Amino acid sequence: MNRPSEDALIATYFAPLAGPGAFGLRDDAALVAQKPGHDIVATKDMSIAGVHFFADDPPGAVARKSLRVNLSDLAAKGAEPAGFLLGLALPEDWTAHWLAGFAQGLGADAAAYKCPLLGGDTVKSPGALIVSITAFGTVPAQKIVLRAGVAAGDILYVTGTIGDAALSLRYRVDALQDSPWTKYVGQADAAYLAGRALLPEPRLALREALRAHAHAAIDISDGFAGDLAKMLRLTGMTAEVAAADVPLSDAARKILHDAPYLLETILTGGDDYEILCAVPPSQSAAFEVCADAAGIPVHPVGTTMPGNAPPVFKDAEGRGLVFARPSFQHF
Amino acid sequence: MNRPSEDALIATYFAPLAGPGAFGLRDDAALVAQKPGHDIVATKDMSIAGVHFFADDPPGAVARKSLRVNLSDLAAKGAEPAGFLLGLALPEDWTAHWLAGFAQGLGADAAAYKCPLLGGDTVKSPGALIVSITAFGTVPAQKIVLRAGVAAGDILYVTGTIGDAALSLRYRVDALQDSPWTKYVGQADAAYLAGRALLPEPRLALREALRAHAHAAIDISDGFAGDLAKMLRLTGMTAEVAAADVPLSDAARKILHDAPYLLETILTGGDDYEILCAVPPSQSAAFEVCADAAGIPVHPVGTTMPGNAPPVFKDAEGRGLVFARPSFQHF
Repeated sequence: MNRPSEDALIATYFAPLAGPGAFGLRDDAALVAQKPGHDIVATKDMSIAGVHFFADDPPGAVARKSLRVNLSDLAAKGAEPAGFLLGLALPEDWTAHWLAGFAQGLGADAAAYKCPLLGGDTVKSPGALIVSITAFGTVPAQKIVLRAGVAAGDILYVTGTIGDAALSLRYRVDALQDSPWTKYVGQADAAYLAGRALLPEPRLALREALRAHAHAAIDISDGFAGDLAKMLRLTGMTAEVAAADVPLSDAARKILHDAPYLLETILTGGDDYEILCAVPPSQSAAFEVCADAAGIPVHPVGTTMPGNAPPVFKDAEGRGLVFARPSFQHF
Repeated sequence: MNRPSEDALIATYFAPLAGPGAFGLRDDAALVAQKPGHDIVATKDMSIAGVHFFADDPPGAVARKSLRVNLSDLAAKGAEPAGFLLGLALPEDWTAHWLAGFAQGLGADAAAYKCPLLGGDTVKSPGALIVSITAFGTVPAQKIVLRAGVAAGDILYVTGTIGDAALSLRYRVDALQDSPWTKYVGQADAAYLAGRALLPEPRLALREALRAHAHAAIDISDGFAGDLAKMLRLTGMTAEVAAADVPLSDAARKILHDAPYLLETILTGGDDYEILCAVPPSQSAAFEVCADAAGIPVHPVGTTMPGNAPPVFKDAEGRGLVFARPSFQHF
């Protein structure tokens, strides 16, 4: 396939994804739709080849994950997706084939999540591929769920399971070095974990439960331990979490049995895109019912208390765990 | 200076720039303020070291230009700035000193243009520095000025002067090769052109004139000839432009006198961030009065007519000019 010009590229691959307010991607700017009685929430996450994903990941998956990490931010705020802007910096060696796959994946998720493309910018990257997405959502006025807001005695809940994506990354690295633990991982489990890393599931269906019942919420992107600390710190809270209470997939559980030292990877590795939230005890039953009705598994993992120290994780014998690096930081 | 961690970096350099709805940059997302009776306009432009600016440009200027190119898009839509999200990918060798300069420049312009920082994402770049800004603006409902809308007989106006930034870039390249024309450029002129390239002036003050009187508008970023063609094409219009009518700075005029072949650089080089708009003749007097009151110089450069061919530029003898590349394209 020949490589189209910049204008042709936008007209061919991205204009079909354009929603109302995008003016067919033929303008410099877009209109963000407003919804009466609702606030507009905006979030922005950049994804860079070699940092956030592997350069040889399937292009459709790169596109979908780049959008989904933004939708996960909206989910944690109790917001409903409304549209997004796409900044795309293509490396020298891009191909029309790659771009077609990227646009196809992006279009599939834009449709599935009712989050149309509104506009953006396509440029040349002198280095790696960069995907910079800004996503918009709506939330009933004054009902945004913030990171700040945890009160003493709140019950901490997490959705889904923790550590799958981090284990997948670790598996990929350690398998190259023939680390013993990787030999015990079955093909199905490895594929399951890889899928979790490649295509996180933004927990948008939890938004009503969060808005109705949660004091605060955060999506877990930089590691469970670190993101928990981040949320608690904002209102001077801390917590004690029994590691055994953190929900794990069967695959993660098996790996942890063979290689207990990977608990740190699970709790601090990040890329989970699950939601961590704080719910007052008086609301916990209602929260669980609401989450269940939305089809989102939620698990209590601890209770908050006042304190300025970071949360403590305890092993089965009640000993505090010490992490080398509690949370992913770029610097 | 030591390099701060990611969280400290945000708290130190960017939190002081945060506006209402940013939650002190301690959340995953921001609220975009709505204004009764107004639409919300969003635009996104990426800037990459080595593509959009020189890696050794002053950090404050890099920040300001990255914001201003987005504000220029808002200006062309007739919108008023409301806030922005910052995506920043820092290369391996970033320093706290560089970042302090970047944040200072960004803060100065955010204040000057009443466009506060609302949120964003700071990550590590495996390659060049990348600045990805999404800017928001407000425009009275239904009053957005689009690229599409030019009618037959409209008068084409441009603000300011064309070609200064492109000449500056060309000067920088050609001076290294001792091109004869560069020897005739005085220091003051070279500095003037360099300033135009480094710090474009978004024509926000023109917004009321545009909303009241223009059929269509575009900000000139990819070259006057190409952006004119882009705007006219959308409604099947064309135009004849006398090159002598295109407004030039004194510096550009002197250079053109010594090196007439640089006319192509002037008309197609881009990075002008001036506004090109189409005004019906019945409104042109009022448009000029309104622009003048706002302190924005505007110059008529031609009249539109139906036609599918790209606009034609004529030299002083009435001969049509042929450009090798009428507009900057990344691909």
